[in-house]
Amino acid sequence: MSLNLTILGCHSATPRINAFPTSQYLEINNRHFLIDCGEGTQRQMRKYKVGFSKIDHIFISHLHGDHFYGLVGLLSTYGILSREKEMHIFGPVGIKKATLQMLKISESHAKFNMIFHELSSTESELIFEDDKVSVRTIPLKHRVYTNGYLFTEKEKPRKLNMLNISGYPEIDKADYNNIKAGRDITLASGEIISNKELTMNPPKPLSFAFCSDTCYKPDIVPIIKNVDLLYHEATFLDDRQDLAKKTRHSTSIEAAQIAKDADVKQLVVGHYSGRYKDISLFKKEAETVFSNVELAEPGKTFSID
Amino acid sequence: MSLNLTILGCHSATPRINAFPTSQYLEINNRHFLIDCGEGTQRQMRKYKVGFSKIDHIFISHLHGDHFYGLVGLLSTYGILSREKEMHIFGPVGIKKATLQMLKISESHAKFNMIFHELSSTESELIFEDDKVSVRTIPLKHRVYTNGYLFTEKEKPRKLNMLNISGYPEIDKADYNNIKAGRDITLASGEIISNKELTMNPPKPLSFAFCSDTCYKPDIVPIIKNVDLLYHEATFLDDRQDLAKKTRHSTSIEAAQIAKDADVKQLVVGHYSGRYKDISLFKKEAETVFSNVELAEPGKTFSID
Repeated sequence: MSLNLTILGCHSATPRINAFPTSQYLEINNRHFLIDCGEGTQRQMRKYKVGFSKIDHIFISHLHGDHFYGLVGLLSTYGILSREKEMHIFGPVGIKKATLQMLKISESHAKFNMIFHELSSTESELIFEDDKVSVRTIPLKHRVYTNGYLFTEKEKPRKLNMLNISGYPEIDKADYNNIKAGRDITLASGEIISNKELTMNPPKPLSFAFCSDTCYKPDIVPIIKNVDLLYHEATFLDDRQDLAKKTRHSTSIEAAQIAKDADVKQLVVGHYSGRYKDISLFKKEAETVFSNVELAEPGKTFSID
Repeated sequence: MSLNLTILGCHSATPRINAFPTSQYLEINNRHFLIDCGEGTQRQMRKYKVGFSKIDHIFISHLHGDHFYGLVGLLSTYGILSREKEMHIFGPVGIKKATLQMLKISESHAKFNMIFHELSSTESELIFEDDKVSVRTIPLKHRVYTNGYLFTEKEKPRKLNMLNISGYPEIDKADYNNIKAGRDITLASGEIISNKELTMNPPKPLSFAFCSDTCYKPDIVPIIKNVDLLYHEATFLDDRQDLAKKTRHSTSIEAAQIAKDADVKQLVVGHYSGRYKDISLFKKEAETVFSNVELAEPGKTFSID
């Protein structure tokens, strides 16, 4: 079980020489997800050598250009590369029509299936689940309909306590799957060996929450409680609370307050406004509220084993 | 009178680490035009410091993604930057609907007028003209409806031959505009001084032809005859004539043949297929047919005074 988050872009508004709009590549429990896809994302994917063809699921938070203008080009490129696997795209209602129309007019003859999952609920909902990972929405509050996403590893089976098991020669390898599944074992003598004695707790499932773009919204705290890694936007420093309110973005103090209240292990901030030349101020300011803060930067990977 | 062409991107198909889809910035006789707009163009414009806000006219050759997927993001950025001047966009039928729908869904509240000039003619037509420059289409042949564009400076008034004029004290400054306009002057004595004696030829108007994407199409030669600068796509070398035919692209030999037949001053080739690692081969091969060939490369500027 492991989690690797690579920042592909983490700046707000418009692409500039050293500013790349939002996109993240998440590897969690051997699943590979793309989160948001601003203009230039496919080039950033190449640059930072993330698994271009491993992605089968793309999650778009909202339909502002800096979070999805790279999607059409990326899908078109998959078509040019003769992709055959289906691609699932999650995002607000409207994403399907706009994307397909643009692909149609550019005569992109992609042969793979694009399966759009259009979201409209304002409640957190389970939108993806397999044997490795589940994904829930985190309803956010921005100028347009927006979701964050919570990625959680599935709980693994209990681990065999081989030292204790070896004390019972009667227990056979054939029993191991039952033991991992949490069952007690009854010996021929009728003695019941409790599962607790035969197993150890499995590793705790890892989790990552992506929250961008949003104003300060404390009611997301229960949804993201105790996550291992939280990306929360911090477009402004505290000096521009007024602008944050007006544009429905967060300050670094607010991002840190969410991290603190949700008791997360680590906070990553990003989506910096272009007005700030020194982004280290975002970390410094957030650290006045929450201790474990890192800055999103293009190409940076956050890993948890 | 001057002409400066800056290559923003010149590679075919998909954006990669060192491959940027087609876009060019043309400054001609104090007019500023953007030609094609692949994904990432706005970042290239920043990188190469071309006049971002000077552009009032964008010319899109065809609707393949590598020639126009950057347009929506660029227009959106102009909106974010509070542009007020109107923007004229020339391109194939369909460009307006696709662009406006994408801008609408992303709630881009651009306040400036976007005036779309949708093209559908298969004959060369005059599509723009002011006191400085005229622009004509160059009908090309590709897998989809495509136009190249011919940019020509307007002819300047004749230049005064001050040495000869000073020989006629009777000629007044008030006559100068008439003389520049090509008129003869009648002195009080009745003697007619021919304009030829009083003026010199104005500088020859400069011209640039953009031809991409297209298969070898010799019937464009009369349209682009004698241009100062010709950009002609050369997606393949001669070794892959088969692929050029199939995908309706040109080889470097074919681009050079067009340049030779049109008797242009200089040929710039580009739109290289990603299969070729050494693009200098395009120049070498073209030079077997036409002597003055240069390679398009991102950030390179071709200047004519």
